[in-house]
Amino acid sequence: MKVPMGVRITQTTLGNRPCVVVDPAQDAHPGIILYFHGGSYILGSPYTAMSLTANLVSRTNIQSVSLDYRLAPEHPFPAALEDALAAYRGLLDDGVEATSIVFAGDSAGGGIAVSTCLMARDADLPMPAAVVTFSAGLDKTHSGASMDSKIGLDPFFTRESFTYTDAMYLAGQDPNHELVSPARFADLTGFPPLLLQVGTNEVLLDDSTQLADRAREAGVDVILDVTADVPHVFQAFAGILDEADQALDRAALFITQRLR
Amino acid sequence: MKVPMGVRITQTTLGNRPCVVVDPAQDAHPGIILYFHGGSYILGSPYTAMSLTANLVSRTNIQSVSLDYRLAPEHPFPAALEDALAAYRGLLDDGVEATSIVFAGDSAGGGIAVSTCLMARDADLPMPAAVVTFSAGLDKTHSGASMDSKIGLDPFFTRESFTYTDAMYLAGQDPNHELVSPARFADLTGFPPLLLQVGTNEVLLDDSTQLADRAREAGVDVILDVTADVPHVFQAFAGILDEADQALDRAALFITQRLR
Repeated sequence: MKVPMGVRITQTTLGNRPCVVVDPAQDAHPGIILYFHGGSYILGSPYTAMSLTANLVSRTNIQSVSLDYRLAPEHPFPAALEDALAAYRGLLDDGVEATSIVFAGDSAGGGIAVSTCLMARDADLPMPAAVVTFSAGLDKTHSGASMDSKIGLDPFFTRESFTYTDAMYLAGQDPNHELVSPARFADLTGFPPLLLQVGTNEVLLDDSTQLADRAREAGVDVILDVTADVPHVFQAFAGILDEADQALDRAALFITQRLR
Repeated sequence: MKVPMGVRITQTTLGNRPCVVVDPAQDAHPGIILYFHGGSYILGSPYTAMSLTANLVSRTNIQSVSLDYRLAPEHPFPAALEDALAAYRGLLDDGVEATSIVFAGDSAGGGIAVSTCLMARDADLPMPAAVVTFSAGLDKTHSGASMDSKIGLDPFFTRESFTYTDAMYLAGQDPNHELVSPARFADLTGFPPLLLQVGTNEVLLDDSTQLADRAREAGVDVILDVTADVPHVFQAFAGILDEADQALDRAALFITQRLR
């Protein structure tokens, strides 16, 4: 994991949760990337996703705040989403304009980005400027065709491998809930523009394709950006794999366009 | 239609067809954008698409060659595709590397870009570096759900409006041919990366979503870039409509990445 040189990392709290603030080396542009790390809702921290977060910061010159949300099994659904919504409310309460905030996240954190946006909309909060996801987990019913067709190609996951982590996150709750499986059940009407990046070598591919379908149906701007022959959250190989750097450059342009 | 200042426009021939060369004002980067204008295979010329072509050139600093291919009804399918393939062969014969050529086109020209790539592959020619389409027409069986669901939203087309132009282009030939309806029938195995831009206010939306599905199935890099509430080939409003300029900026980044 390569973290770009020059970003400045500090710690603070937002909505009563710790978070890590990543500032560009210089000439910060207005806006905040509210980042949600991955880790199947049971693992990870802002530091495990620091390469992704810092690469977005260094490419956009926009500050990121990466949230250390509560994890399962100690804190199952909807704890992580409550923390994320509280963080968003915290930014708004601090006087940050919603239109200057972009949600971003990888894997489970991509799911948090989408579901927090749903919760914000349903709480009559203003929408953020955009949502960016890297290989988001968006369907805990695992209904996508890729869940079976990509077995053997995906170096990380199989359908069975989700059983254990899903059980911890759901703690007996229904996977057929729009905040757990938005790709299958959420109406995305009123959503801000979405950028969904995903690789073809992952069982989670169709989590993103299904969400893109729903976004188009709801008349939402959506870029479904699929890179061939790369695995889950390949953007973490920035500095090593050309596809990672190119995908992050596209994400940075998208964020910059939405915060313009 | 606003054509960016500073590009230089000259005329030449390629594969025995006239074409228009658009050069950046200065500091040209290596590569060629082989452009195919739209117009339902019966209308248009490199000049009617000059805003699109020149905006790509000015944003990438890469030269474009825009082909004046033969039109129906005088020259029905496959005349336009034969001209396009001959132009590509002409560039290769001139010593241009395939990996420094990007195919691009709008509307019917997007269909030409995709089908010419199919023909090139099946002729064992090397693949170009990428294909970029704006609101491509890719299915003359018009099987997409958007063909009905977008009626009334699409200011240009209805299912019925294609009847007349399709008849001229097909001249009695079968629409169930992969070069006529690649979104429905083509196997895209071996294709270069695709960028498919389209608006939600057009009956041709699902021509692109269907081709993206097929690309993912074939393990091809594909970005399906959908802008909400904009019509067919909205990029032609560059300089007037923010969505147009932003989409062209994304297309320029994609082309630059593929020619890197």
